[in-house]
Amino acid sequence: MILAPSAQLSWFEDTRVRFESVLADKLGQFKGPSDVLNDAVEYALLEGGKRLRAMLVFSAGHAVGTPMQQLTDSACAIEAMHAYSLVHDDLPSMDNDVLRRGKPTCHVKFGEAFALLAGDALQTAAFQWLAQSQQGSVSVRMQQIAALAGASGLQGMAAGQAIDLAHVGKPMDLQALEQMHARKTGDLIRASVRMGYVSNPGLSPVEQEGLEAYAHCLGLAYQVIDDILDVESTSDVLGKTSGKDALNNKPTMVSLMGLEQARQLLEQLRKKALAACEVIEQDRRGPLETLVELITNRKS
Amino acid sequence: MILAPSAQLSWFEDTRVRFESVLADKLGQFKGPSDVLNDAVEYALLEGGKRLRAMLVFSAGHAVGTPMQQLTDSACAIEAMHAYSLVHDDLPSMDNDVLRRGKPTCHVKFGEAFALLAGDALQTAAFQWLAQSQQGSVSVRMQQIAALAGASGLQGMAAGQAIDLAHVGKPMDLQALEQMHARKTGDLIRASVRMGYVSNPGLSPVEQEGLEAYAHCLGLAYQVIDDILDVESTSDVLGKTSGKDALNNKPTMVSLMGLEQARQLLEQLRKKALAACEVIEQDRRGPLETLVELITNRKS
Repeated sequence: MILAPSAQLSWFEDTRVRFESVLADKLGQFKGPSDVLNDAVEYALLEGGKRLRAMLVFSAGHAVGTPMQQLTDSACAIEAMHAYSLVHDDLPSMDNDVLRRGKPTCHVKFGEAFALLAGDALQTAAFQWLAQSQQGSVSVRMQQIAALAGASGLQGMAAGQAIDLAHVGKPMDLQALEQMHARKTGDLIRASVRMGYVSNPGLSPVEQEGLEAYAHCLGLAYQVIDDILDVESTSDVLGKTSGKDALNNKPTMVSLMGLEQARQLLEQLRKKALAACEVIEQDRRGPLETLVELITNRKS
Repeated sequence: MILAPSAQLSWFEDTRVRFESVLADKLGQFKGPSDVLNDAVEYALLEGGKRLRAMLVFSAGHAVGTPMQQLTDSACAIEAMHAYSLVHDDLPSMDNDVLRRGKPTCHVKFGEAFALLAGDALQTAAFQWLAQSQQGSVSVRMQQIAALAGASGLQGMAAGQAIDLAHVGKPMDLQALEQMHARKTGDLIRASVRMGYVSNPGLSPVEQEGLEAYAHCLGLAYQVIDDILDVESTSDVLGKTSGKDALNNKPTMVSLMGLEQARQLLEQLRKKALAACEVIEQDRRGPLETLVELITNRKS
């Protein structure tokens, strides 16, 4: 059955709302003896967020025939990993940001030490939730853990942030900028898709390659629109400080290629991502297509 | 074969030296595109350290018949997790320490932002190394990941550090102090033993309970001797700042129960740990016994 666009959005919104409740339950089961740490983690994980990465897990799962119920632990894990990265990136020694999702950042609310620990504990939670999950085979979950870890550490997100820091005030060409973004945000977006599709061990190499290409385009598109919004939008709409990259003299896709070219690149990536997921049967790729539109048209 | 004490020490030292080389190789295989982050991680992980937790993994493995070669990834993982915790604990917003293992702490050498990222990447590496390991069955490795994560986050080490922070300048009774230490250091010591013994799925419940009791006593003993050394030793010998707890007005086992009583408790824990590992055949428990002596007699 091919759903109309409005029905897709309804599947989407329904899944997102159900996920919020699953995520809150999951965290509730894993709280520990420090109330302030529990609170800081809850604040960082549950207060807002578009749940893009969770929705990528579910949409990739849908594409390979795995229902949402079999992927909630993976989705919780990737959102915990993403939340940890935001908390640490916002710290004074990093981006020193005070606003996130329209609210005070974790260290503004809980102090720097507890924010540091909250980020640490969120990263641990991501792996703990997968390790103690009952969803899927142990072999599938090990692949999901490997995908998540490979996207996050020395070869992924942490390296991207380090490359970013090392280039403050220094020139960067477009290729280096793309590399940096690929590590900083693209890898976790790719991991989300992978954590979804590995749930079906019978996937063909062609389908895998298509989904990997989809994730690659989407990750880059996400950063291009981020850079466009940083120039065009306001802090009120974004829920985080706008214009920050220009203020910090940071190179962006827009500063390096110009706004018009950045828009053209975004349109190319949109088309490529839609083409890439055509390896999936039409009645299963709707959510992946919806995500492309949501991401490339996002306003915040 | 029951080894004489000198032969035990020789097994011990030989294993430790071989492990150092394995750990350096492991990190070498997982470096990423940021040179400064690679360097900061290498500095934090490879420069010194007694490798107590790795030796616990190997000794518990020896006790259940698993050779060192089948547990090196677990040992690397637990040392990476421990190294992450030291780097973050030393940060200015936490304990603000400048000396570790006789050398400048990671943030003194690399700056606060890179030290933060190095700690983050070390935690990720711990899970990545286990997830991508070829040692043991996938089911054993999943148990090891669960043990490591359970000991480290909201229910373990991060919570212990949060409880510690929340009590600066406030009174704490002995029970609360023991709870705090159990989370802060005891849980990871217990996880080390568990990561070793789960490698043998055929272990009897009695053997498991004995090893858990052993690990519990050893974890507490470790903290008691730590508190005694903080009072009695010098920074030169310790390789980290001595007398810091008294200076920061932090409660310790010594300040709450007195030096003489702390010594008596240490002796009791030593005997209990030795008694607990008697569930293991005599010719396999030598390394566990050696660790008890090394820890309770340590000078730094």
